[in-house]
Amino acid sequence: MNSKFLCPEALEIQSSLLYPDSGLIVCDARIKELYPDFFAANQAPTCLIAAGEDAKNLNTVQSLYQFFLRNSLGRSDMVHVFGGGTICDLAAYAVSTYKRGCRLQLYPSTLLAMVDAAIGGKTGINFHNLKNHIGSFYPAERVILHKAFLQTLAPDELRQGMAEMLKAHMLFEELPLPDFTGTEIPDEEDLLAHALYKMSVCQEDPFDKGPRMLLNFGHSFGHALESHSAYRIKHGDAVAAGMNMACDFSLQMNFIDRQQYNARKETLKLYPYPAELLDYMQSIGFEELYPYLIQDKKNGANLRLILPVGAEIKLVELNEV
Amino acid sequence: MNSKFLCPEALEIQSSLLYPDSGLIVCDARIKELYPDFFAANQAPTCLIAAGEDAKNLNTVQSLYQFFLRNSLGRSDMVHVFGGGTICDLAAYAVSTYKRGCRLQLYPSTLLAMVDAAIGGKTGINFHNLKNHIGSFYPAERVILHKAFLQTLAPDELRQGMAEMLKAHMLFEELPLPDFTGTEIPDEEDLLAHALYKMSVCQEDPFDKGPRMLLNFGHSFGHALESHSAYRIKHGDAVAAGMNMACDFSLQMNFIDRQQYNARKETLKLYPYPAELLDYMQSIGFEELYPYLIQDKKNGANLRLILPVGAEIKLVELNEV
Repeated sequence: MNSKFLCPEALEIQSSLLYPDSGLIVCDARIKELYPDFFAANQAPTCLIAAGEDAKNLNTVQSLYQFFLRNSLGRSDMVHVFGGGTICDLAAYAVSTYKRGCRLQLYPSTLLAMVDAAIGGKTGINFHNLKNHIGSFYPAERVILHKAFLQTLAPDELRQGMAEMLKAHMLFEELPLPDFTGTEIPDEEDLLAHALYKMSVCQEDPFDKGPRMLLNFGHSFGHALESHSAYRIKHGDAVAAGMNMACDFSLQMNFIDRQQYNARKETLKLYPYPAELLDYMQSIGFEELYPYLIQDKKNGANLRLILPVGAEIKLVELNEV
Repeated sequence: MNSKFLCPEALEIQSSLLYPDSGLIVCDARIKELYPDFFAANQAPTCLIAAGEDAKNLNTVQSLYQFFLRNSLGRSDMVHVFGGGTICDLAAYAVSTYKRGCRLQLYPSTLLAMVDAAIGGKTGINFHNLKNHIGSFYPAERVILHKAFLQTLAPDELRQGMAEMLKAHMLFEELPLPDFTGTEIPDEEDLLAHALYKMSVCQEDPFDKGPRMLLNFGHSFGHALESHSAYRIKHGDAVAAGMNMACDFSLQMNFIDRQQYNARKETLKLYPYPAELLDYMQSIGFEELYPYLIQDKKNGANLRLILPVGAEIKLVELNEV
């Protein structure tokens, strides 16, 4: 963490990619393939990483440290990170711990990263199959949304971001729902609305002690599903499934009545769950997820979950389950 | 880093060791040997570490993560760290990055750690022979000074702390000088004066962007000496030697006149330099240290050093050396 919390991160929409004029680049290998012109023109030393949960470990972090060291990265030098959530989380963690923190600018390349992962300063890597178990709070100085990146996204990846937009809508109805048919990418206005919503919640609660926790709706069950499936289930899909499980659990515990349950499920039904995920959701019970749930970072001695309670969504602490 | 910067660390003198009533303990193996009664009575899960610069690496950090994981450490659980500077730096780094930061209390066991290393939130481990190259800003909630620890310190170790007290005196004359004959350990009043001085400078400038940098007087040359000697020269000794080199450099650059030089050297002469160190100081030239100096965390493109300039001690940026 650093003083950037005192001067909050800035958000910017860029219609064409600008060359970073100095500093280092960390980049998802696929982005370099998709945008060869940009990277041919660019002179900054570049470290390519093959994206994916597998890359989010201490070994990759060490190879980033080595890249920084080879290129004499100083504290006041900028690291420009191009990539989806995993690359942003991973590279931001490395930047935050190198020389106790260097300068950081994020260029999220997926919808998920644009509306969620790249915003709010949570960095992280996995440890022993536990997601984001090691990490820091380290917001980027600027998060740059470059809409063209979305045009090269597979529908599968676009859906992952839509899941977070669905979650944000569940928490704050005024936020627009995305086009779940996947025929259109979100327009600039919707993108900004979602990114700014995330940013405002995080700035109100940078260290995740209060209202920000609600953004984890669907995430406790979701992370557990991701871990249990050894990351075969993708993050957005897992969150969408997790919100369903949270509603089921709330109904079971009488935190919500049948009518409230149906209303929430109605909205959640809009999400285009892949068939494989639906099968998985039906085959897995709460007992199998429990060991993963108690490893969740939010938990102390007791299990804490974000759940629908009446008309609200709240953090609930469960003493005995 | 975390919100603790908003509620600053507290300092406490304890006349007898109290059992932590909950949480985990990370402890220098030697302290457990020296205080068997305390550790026999204590029930908290304990991880022992053999102190020394060799331990300050990512492997030890991983073994701490594993200890935390095995004992289901939660974000709101406390980790109590007993040890000198290396153990405090290392364990605090692990705590700061585990689940993005758990609770931390430090019980520094050396004079150096009491008046310097344990205070102000700098954590760190070494990387590729570069000292504290990876780290975070993460102040402990409380730093507990237990004077009895000083009675079991070897004179050699006591001297390392005295070097930092000498440095603090060079920066702020009102601070008492320690007894360099090494026959008496500092009294409570002097200990507190030095610890509080460090704490006040750090709280004014938690992220090391301004006045706190001056606390690095002697450290750029000192760290370079430590690295160059592969940590054969101890930190305090290296800082004492480093302050001499800084004065020599300032005289050479005409930043101070002969009279100012002599006055500073007069005070620095009080330090009981070991014979081996004096030999080392005479045998090594600025050219050999230069590669280590430019790796210093304070440096961007230009070399930046804390140097005597006239009657002051200042951060100086050198464009061409």
